[in-house]
Amino acid sequence: MIIVKSVADLRRVRAELPGPLGLVPTMGFLHEGHLSLVRRARADCASVAVSIFVNPTQFGPGEDLERYPRALERDLNLLRPIGVDLVWTPPPEEVYPSGYQTFVTVEQVSRPLEGKARPIHFRGVATVVAKLLNLFEPHRAYFGQKDAQQTVVVRRMARDLDFPLEVVVCPTVREADGLAMSSRNAYLTPGERPVASVLYRALGAAKEALDRGEHDADILRSVMSRTLADEPVASEEYVSIAHPATLDELETVEGEALFSLAVRLGRTRLIDNFLLHEDEWSTGIIAEGSRA
Amino acid sequence: MIIVKSVADLRRVRAELPGPLGLVPTMGFLHEGHLSLVRRARADCASVAVSIFVNPTQFGPGEDLERYPRALERDLNLLRPIGVDLVWTPPPEEVYPSGYQTFVTVEQVSRPLEGKARPIHFRGVATVVAKLLNLFEPHRAYFGQKDAQQTVVVRRMARDLDFPLEVVVCPTVREADGLAMSSRNAYLTPGERPVASVLYRALGAAKEALDRGEHDADILRSVMSRTLADEPVASEEYVSIAHPATLDELETVEGEALFSLAVRLGRTRLIDNFLLHEDEWSTGIIAEGSRA
Repeated sequence: MIIVKSVADLRRVRAELPGPLGLVPTMGFLHEGHLSLVRRARADCASVAVSIFVNPTQFGPGEDLERYPRALERDLNLLRPIGVDLVWTPPPEEVYPSGYQTFVTVEQVSRPLEGKARPIHFRGVATVVAKLLNLFEPHRAYFGQKDAQQTVVVRRMARDLDFPLEVVVCPTVREADGLAMSSRNAYLTPGERPVASVLYRALGAAKEALDRGEHDADILRSVMSRTLADEPVASEEYVSIAHPATLDELETVEGEALFSLAVRLGRTRLIDNFLLHEDEWSTGIIAEGSRA
Repeated sequence: MIIVKSVADLRRVRAELPGPLGLVPTMGFLHEGHLSLVRRARADCASVAVSIFVNPTQFGPGEDLERYPRALERDLNLLRPIGVDLVWTPPPEEVYPSGYQTFVTVEQVSRPLEGKARPIHFRGVATVVAKLLNLFEPHRAYFGQKDAQQTVVVRRMARDLDFPLEVVVCPTVREADGLAMSSRNAYLTPGERPVASVLYRALGAAKEALDRGEHDADILRSVMSRTLADEPVASEEYVSIAHPATLDELETVEGEALFSLAVRLGRTRLIDNFLLHEDEWSTGIIAEGSRA
């Protein structure tokens, strides 16, 4: 496993890796969700690369950029045994050098849901992913379903800007009580931690109602809201049932739908989602172009 | 010379071309300026590709998108004898399909000069060039110095987003009286055409003043303005002496400088420039990363 910090070293080492290359972009503080992406990339690709970079352009003013958890040595120790060829751990000035001024904006799908609370978040995500795609030239890039809107933004960007790669989305990995794994779970106090499964329970309640034949999206959203309201420490930021590609809110749940929600628990903001396909709960894989 | 219209055909044909590949992006209605880019690409690269696409996203409301001159058959006949391997002539819906919503913005260098008169122009340029770079995966892309600010925006984008290619800028090709070749020269009436050389004459007057030892940028700008004022049909939009990478206006001309101007002649808007290097008038070539 080769670990590099500079763009020049990254390009040099990457050029020697046999294709196809799978890239797993991360912000570090790795958990089983990230490792599942790496294992999937390892199974699919001849070479696997991981980036570890807490990307400042996706944090708004007053967000948790400074306190975002970091543990580089631990992360590298988690990656070593699972077959990673290349890890890039750049300092911020290597990614955004002096004079930097270019941003990628994905318009409509960046605006609702997370975008309402975090107006520059997806501009930062799209920009850093575009840079990673140009730096690593991967054949496939792996993202977790946990950050559902991020997967929509990245797929839309990859398709719109004709990036020659396949965006692969892998299932959310959960704790025993259903809490979706997230680096931000480290913020939860011991008192908050058991409450945090309420996001999963709210999604499950909506799914149960759907299975009983309830297709009215307003009613299904209120099922989620009521479950959240049962936990007074948890405060709902939004509940949504939207089209999984456009993120337009649905009136009726018939075919595909993305059930998602955001909740504040003390100082911590948590998100979760279920992707409903026409006849199953699962995640999707969309193949786009492939490299020349 | 293979001519394709769809993205799928483009990717298929491109995959068979030996590298390095040189790309010459154009809006068609080709003139000797474009052909000089193709010849340079032919000399530098194993394969040469040309795109012909009047890009709607770089035209503002009320600009000349509809009347922009088009002559595809003539263009193809000009390209055939000079060694082009692949030409892409997509319809607009192939480049911007339904649901399209991603844009690349290069912030500071897009704002002055042309950006003041054309606020969305460089967003459209940066976006379509990003797409072309991902579609063609060229090792080098060729642009004319005539559109000086465009070269600055494209270089900044390529560097900021880490596109693995070399941006090559080639000298402006001029008519006998100094008028810079441009597809928009076709708009000039027979009465306006002889006046149009005033842009070149204004740049030349500033250069002469500089050679006589005048380094005050305000005085040099006023030399350009006075030359333009000698032609009552020509109306100055701006004259500028700026840093060639940041486009900040200079107070004193000492090292590198970009002398540029925009003029209205009836319904036609013309631009021209000289790039002053430390010890010569010429154009520059900046090498960035190269493909893995």
